[in-house]
Amino acid sequence: MTPERYAKILRVLRLRQPTLSVLMDEVNKPHNLSAILRTCDAVGAMTAHAVPPASMSLGSFRSRMFEASSGSAHKWVNVQQHASALDAIRELQGQGVQVLATHLSQRSVDYRQPDYTRPTCVLLGAEKFGVSDEAAEAADANIIIPMMGMVQSLNVSVAAATILFEAQRQRLEAGMYAQPQLSDEELRRFAFRWAYP
Amino acid sequence: MTPERYAKILRVLRLRQPTLSVLMDEVNKPHNLSAILRTCDAVGAMTAHAVPPASMSLGSFRSRMFEASSGSAHKWVNVQQHASALDAIRELQGQGVQVLATHLSQRSVDYRQPDYTRPTCVLLGAEKFGVSDEAAEAADANIIIPMMGMVQSLNVSVAAATILFEAQRQRLEAGMYAQPQLSDEELRRFAFRWAYP
Ligand SMILES: C[S@@+](CC[C@H](N)C(=O)[O-])C[C@H]1O[C@@H](n2cnc3c(N)ncnc32)[C@H](O)[C@@H]1O
Ligand SMILES: C[S@@+](CC[C@H](N)C(=O)[O-])C[C@H]1O[C@@H](n2cnc3c(N)ncnc32)[C@H](O)[C@@H]1O
Repeated sequence: MTPERYAKILRVLRLRQPTLSVLMDEVNKPHNLSAILRTCDAVGAMTAHAVPPASMSLGSFRSRMFEASSGSAHKWVNVQQHASALDAIRELQGQGVQVLATHLSQRSVDYRQPDYTRPTCVLLGAEKFGVSDEAAEAADANIIIPMMGMVQSLNVSVAAATILFEAQRQRLEAGMYAQPQLSDEELRRFAFRWAYP
Repeated sequence: MTPERYAKILRVLRLRQPTLSVLMDEVNKPHNLSAILRTCDAVGAMTAHAVPPASMSLGSFRSRMFEASSGSAHKWVNVQQHASALDAIRELQGQGVQVLATHLSQRSVDYRQPDYTRPTCVLLGAEKFGVSDEAAEAADANIIIPMMGMVQSLNVSVAAATILFEAQRQRLEAGMYAQPQLSDEELRRFAFRWAYP
């Protein structure tokens, strides 16, 4: 561990946003998982909640996750598993987090409308099936990226990034990257964990 | 061809932005090519310029492109091949298009700074090697998405989308989706081509 490396770790931790996360509901392609984790890292999101695909054992999902993060993003973004999207949504809402489901419905709003400076989790759907209607209903809001073409939907990692960089923009404007969002104690704890894995 | 389908084609063509495009310099993973084409379609970009990977025959790049666009985006976004990035840049600049290279350099600016209402092409680099220094120098500007984490770079399709949706935002604000950017003659020509392939 060089001093430069340690300084970088501290710099990055001071930018971390513990109140911004994603919830991936059965997202299952390694390249998508990998791209989403990299984007989380880039905007300072610390946790990627994940519901493993129903068709996949927990073990093989774990190794797929691991494979997915060859770019090493899994070291810097904590992947937290949940039994179902509904469980995860209720748990997050219980902690005061607004869950924004990426889902087209009667109540969908443009993804630029929500206030991302609030504690926020972005719910992403599986490549084939999207977000389930029940999960979308349980969420605090439904958001959608305007599609102006012939194709119906974006790639899931592309949608995640488009939304997370809007969150980054709002949080930059609000000064949330200008001072640490983690407590001193958390900063010390993570610095130790990252520096001496 | 149902009347609804034809109406959708006309609606989409009225939103098309002939002055917005990407240039993919040796981008080669099918899932990235596919995701980029879908995003182009979604923001109304009509052309994806592409320099085939040096290691790949034109034939196999073509079939990879085709495979990549199983989501059918290749029907709606024209893929135009070029021999080299430099050739393509000069050609675009000759047509009055500003080329924005996604590249970290002395002169890089935040990707939100450029004026995307001008005729614009976003230059994207290969998964492994990024944009070459010569191509970046030939470009009108270098742009970068701010990275606040430990990982150095984003997935290329994620970076493309982040930038293209900023372009969409600016063009929405400027009213560029409110009236057709294609001439009446072009609208008729494309409508015919899309409706009767
Ligand atoms: C390929 S899409 C799912 C498509 C599925 N057939 C459906 O209709 O929901 C996979 C995921 O990408 C995200 N996504 C794709 N396009 C989106 C858009 N325009 N707005 C918001 N999220 C989008 C959502 O998380 C979605 O669940
Ligand atoms: C994985 S990156 C290339 C990484 C390569 N090692 C480098 O240093 O350039 C592939 C492409 O994604 C795009 N990209 C990735 N991160 C970006 C960022 N932060 N800002 C702008 N473009 C980015 C660029 O087009 C880049 O050429």
